[in-house]
Amino acid sequence: MYTNDQLQSLIENYLAQAEFPAEPELLYAPIAYSLAGGGKRLRPMLVLLSHALFSDNVQQALPAAGAVEVFHNFTLLHDDIMDNAAIRRGKPSVHAKWGRNVAILSGDAMLIYAYRLLSLLPAAQVPQALATFDTMALEVCEGQQYDMDFEQKQKVSVVEYMHMIELKTSALLAGSVQIGAQLGGASEEDCRKLRRFAIELGLAFQLQDDLLDSYGDERLGKAIGGDILEGKKTYLAVTAMSRADEATREELRTLLNDGGIDPARKIAGVKALFDRLDVPHLAEQQIELRFERALAQLDTLPVDPARTAPLREFAAGLMGRKK
Amino acid sequence: MYTNDQLQSLIENYLAQAEFPAEPELLYAPIAYSLAGGGKRLRPMLVLLSHALFSDNVQQALPAAGAVEVFHNFTLLHDDIMDNAAIRRGKPSVHAKWGRNVAILSGDAMLIYAYRLLSLLPAAQVPQALATFDTMALEVCEGQQYDMDFEQKQKVSVVEYMHMIELKTSALLAGSVQIGAQLGGASEEDCRKLRRFAIELGLAFQLQDDLLDSYGDERLGKAIGGDILEGKKTYLAVTAMSRADEATREELRTLLNDGGIDPARKIAGVKALFDRLDVPHLAEQQIELRFERALAQLDTLPVDPARTAPLREFAAGLMGRKK
Repeated sequence: MYTNDQLQSLIENYLAQAEFPAEPELLYAPIAYSLAGGGKRLRPMLVLLSHALFSDNVQQALPAAGAVEVFHNFTLLHDDIMDNAAIRRGKPSVHAKWGRNVAILSGDAMLIYAYRLLSLLPAAQVPQALATFDTMALEVCEGQQYDMDFEQKQKVSVVEYMHMIELKTSALLAGSVQIGAQLGGASEEDCRKLRRFAIELGLAFQLQDDLLDSYGDERLGKAIGGDILEGKKTYLAVTAMSRADEATREELRTLLNDGGIDPARKIAGVKALFDRLDVPHLAEQQIELRFERALAQLDTLPVDPARTAPLREFAAGLMGRKK
Repeated sequence: MYTNDQLQSLIENYLAQAEFPAEPELLYAPIAYSLAGGGKRLRPMLVLLSHALFSDNVQQALPAAGAVEVFHNFTLLHDDIMDNAAIRRGKPSVHAKWGRNVAILSGDAMLIYAYRLLSLLPAAQVPQALATFDTMALEVCEGQQYDMDFEQKQKVSVVEYMHMIELKTSALLAGSVQIGAQLGGASEEDCRKLRRFAIELGLAFQLQDDLLDSYGDERLGKAIGGDILEGKKTYLAVTAMSRADEATREELRTLLNDGGIDPARKIAGVKALFDRLDVPHLAEQQIELRFERALAQLDTLPVDPARTAPLREFAAGLMGRKK
């Protein structure tokens, strides 16, 4: 058995050992740059932790762990072009550093490289891993498209929002645990339970992300209110809209879409409306509910509870909690 | 045994039966639009024709034929963004019709969909097909990057140019025949021979494309001189540069980079220089040489010559020749 820190090191070492051709430089340098950019390696951790529930042969699952991490970084690379985001993890994004065309093409190559890692799995495991990976990857694209659609939409319901983040955020976590568990020899039923765990965890994580963006976390000292300034349709915004009367709704819409207003006043005004509508409290409830549902799935797995402990520890860490 | 026309119909039917989800519309509609846009289906034909050399079970290879065609159309979709091309096969390109972000994301989904088709192959065949496909796909990306690099480069040698088109054009043909042959049960040596056939055929095809763009083909009645007007580094241009003395080289470079000159005069001027340097004749020789080398590979295959006839017919048709 490995500790979570040891699994993390295995992933870092596996990713670091990847050698890309020197030429054409503008194709491969951005891939190496993206993969060396850090990040928490959440998704490959989920592959290995799920795999470890059913198998002790962690080495076997490493190519799949690498594949989901490469895929995740590919999505960030292309998303940054679409969102026109200049900074990623404190450094220039690929398209800001090398230009749009290099970012499109090196992202494409990165997606292909994720599949190449999959092809390094034991041959008998490749077909199922490939099918799971494809489904997952298409879901993530669907989520990103819905997210872009929302920017143009006047009205987004809470249900639509939850569906979008289930695709954009949870699908990749669910695919990761599924691939890991399948490689470890889990039954279909156990895979389904683990998927449910990951979907709920992803929702909890994303809702918490939305909440912290507006209400902050003293531990992080992060700038607060970015989503509000962008007028983003977050869980807070769509929940507020669904609860407000027509007048309040109009007030909120006007505030969120106001680009001329002083930033501090905009943030304070929107948050006052959120507070009046009890939105932060509702978000906390949802986060709690989703997180508990996630953990409850682990109780139903037919494995020694000691085996699920690392996955619980990981989930708690993801949510910024001690276990 | 199927005739080539029958194989073509099988491919069209296979592609037409693909059903994409209705939502999110902006993700899937561009994929259906791209695949319905026609094209000669050269690459899936190569999959099926190579497969048919070794097997009569053509149905088995259809998912792979679909995968290479979807991949090819994905490359066109993303290339059109990079090249800022507004028209594809006489219709608006995806990015012209739906915008850049939709084109990036639906292209990504299309690449994933190509892999999904691969996963429909018989499970025992998936690992090898996946590995071949990945290598091929990365080579195509490399070729596209070199092609973009050339736009910024002052000097491109004939060797560099041939290497680029071997990646950008031939790699996909070589991967197609390899996957088809592997699925049909060909030996490694026969796969190598077929790859060599496809590489040479791809080079002949691309050089002919370069030649026809400047010197035309009465049968096609195509507008002539597009590459010259864009100042593109084609086989003709790099060959001319390699043969010219310093003064002529400077003259050619000035003409090719001149955006202000009257188009007809630019085309006539560049072609006069090409003619003076005997470039069209040299291009024809290269085309002939490559095409003959391609066909010669087929003679070395340990199959009844009658079985290679459809592939010869296809190759001749590709080059616009009667067999």
